[in-house]
Amino acid sequence: MKRLKCTISYDGTNFHGYQIQPNQRSVQETLEATLTHMHKKPVLVVGSGRTDAKVHAVGQVIHFDTSLNIPVLKWEKALNALLPTDIVVQRVEEVSNEFHARFDVIKKEYRYKVSRTPGRDVFKRHYSYHYPYPLDLLKIQEAMNLLIGTHDFTSFCSAKTEVKDKIRTLYHVELIEKDDELIFRFVGNGFLYNMVRILVGTLLEVGQGKTQPQEIQTILEKQDRTLSGKTAPGHGLYLWKVSYDN
Amino acid sequence: MKRLKCTISYDGTNFHGYQIQPNQRSVQETLEATLTHMHKKPVLVVGSGRTDAKVHAVGQVIHFDTSLNIPVLKWEKALNALLPTDIVVQRVEEVSNEFHARFDVIKKEYRYKVSRTPGRDVFKRHYSYHYPYPLDLLKIQEAMNLLIGTHDFTSFCSAKTEVKDKIRTLYHVELIEKDDELIFRFVGNGFLYNMVRILVGTLLEVGQGKTQPQEIQTILEKQDRTLSGKTAPGHGLYLWKVSYDN
Repeated sequence: MKRLKCTISYDGTNFHGYQIQPNQRSVQETLEATLTHMHKKPVLVVGSGRTDAKVHAVGQVIHFDTSLNIPVLKWEKALNALLPTDIVVQRVEEVSNEFHARFDVIKKEYRYKVSRTPGRDVFKRHYSYHYPYPLDLLKIQEAMNLLIGTHDFTSFCSAKTEVKDKIRTLYHVELIEKDDELIFRFVGNGFLYNMVRILVGTLLEVGQGKTQPQEIQTILEKQDRTLSGKTAPGHGLYLWKVSYDN
Repeated sequence: MKRLKCTISYDGTNFHGYQIQPNQRSVQETLEATLTHMHKKPVLVVGSGRTDAKVHAVGQVIHFDTSLNIPVLKWEKALNALLPTDIVVQRVEEVSNEFHARFDVIKKEYRYKVSRTPGRDVFKRHYSYHYPYPLDLLKIQEAMNLLIGTHDFTSFCSAKTEVKDKIRTLYHVELIEKDDELIFRFVGNGFLYNMVRILVGTLLEVGQGKTQPQEIQTILEKQDRTLSGKTAPGHGLYLWKVSYDN
């Protein structure tokens, strides 16, 4: 048995998220169905983590074990020929049997795209959050700087979050302006459920003047989800990159 | 009765083209169904011209007549609230009853997007033609310059074209490089069936060295569709702008 690590991108529009769920189209189920078809026996896929419905991936990482005798360089083509067009395998590498796509993650990058065109852009409706309201970008940046570092992010995750330890470290928090888009970039050692979407929702309220940048500090300290902003919609979010120790 | 001129954009992915066809989803049918629902009687829509299956529009123009007493400024919102999300009304203007969206066109702009990323970009699969092969852009530009002006475009339209007069004038023919994309821009007084897609297919063959730039001249003169290149796929094409005399 060989273990293969695959870097994949997907358009989340027509998926009910990464994880298998009954009667819903998911990325994991689609990957497993293709691999099971190839192997003529069930194959399980382990992803670096879940993504929600409508959320996209530029560089999600998964692993699986295979007994097939396909050279590693041919795997990319073989999988892309069989997978539906909304999943694209970018890279396949053979890794040690100890490698684990979820447990071995050391760093993840998420990006969130906000479209600021006055009218709706029909070509972006699935790929960025349309937010045509005035925004003070300097205030947003001020608030983003307060997020860098190690914090308890209880205020910035879904109340449904089950993990106990809500302390995470954000290494980079950056605002990129590109044409009519704002891109919120977050690089950290881990992210809680809905964390990026709640951070963006809160930062947009800062940009609108509804929340002062310095309040971010207080919201973090109070560890109370009701103090932060709305959860921004899934279709603006991209799992951009997953990093490992090798 | 008032005549309204609407500028609309649409994502062509899930349309079988602009024009009504039996048992197929079309832009015209979708617009007419919405307007008929609003008016409680059949409303006919006249477009500036057809677009094929998968072809997009940034600025298609249509007109229709209405007896409804909606102020012109409210029409945009009213239509966008009722139309499916893959059609967006950008502007609605009241025009004279003589205005005709097809007959009064004086200029049209089409753009064709080619994606040159080595691997497939899952987010562009419906929005640009993936062409990862080496291209000599100077040669393409040389060939494009030969297309400017008034020519008989028989060699560059579908053999199925029914119009007799195949003489058209191209005012601007331009190649734009943007990130990993090439954008072919054509502005002319009119376009024949499949003309832009055959022009782009031929220009890509020029870029690949399969056709010499100067051969464009000969191909135009010979008036023979078999001498030009393949028809590039519909999903890279955008009806960008339609201009009128007012």
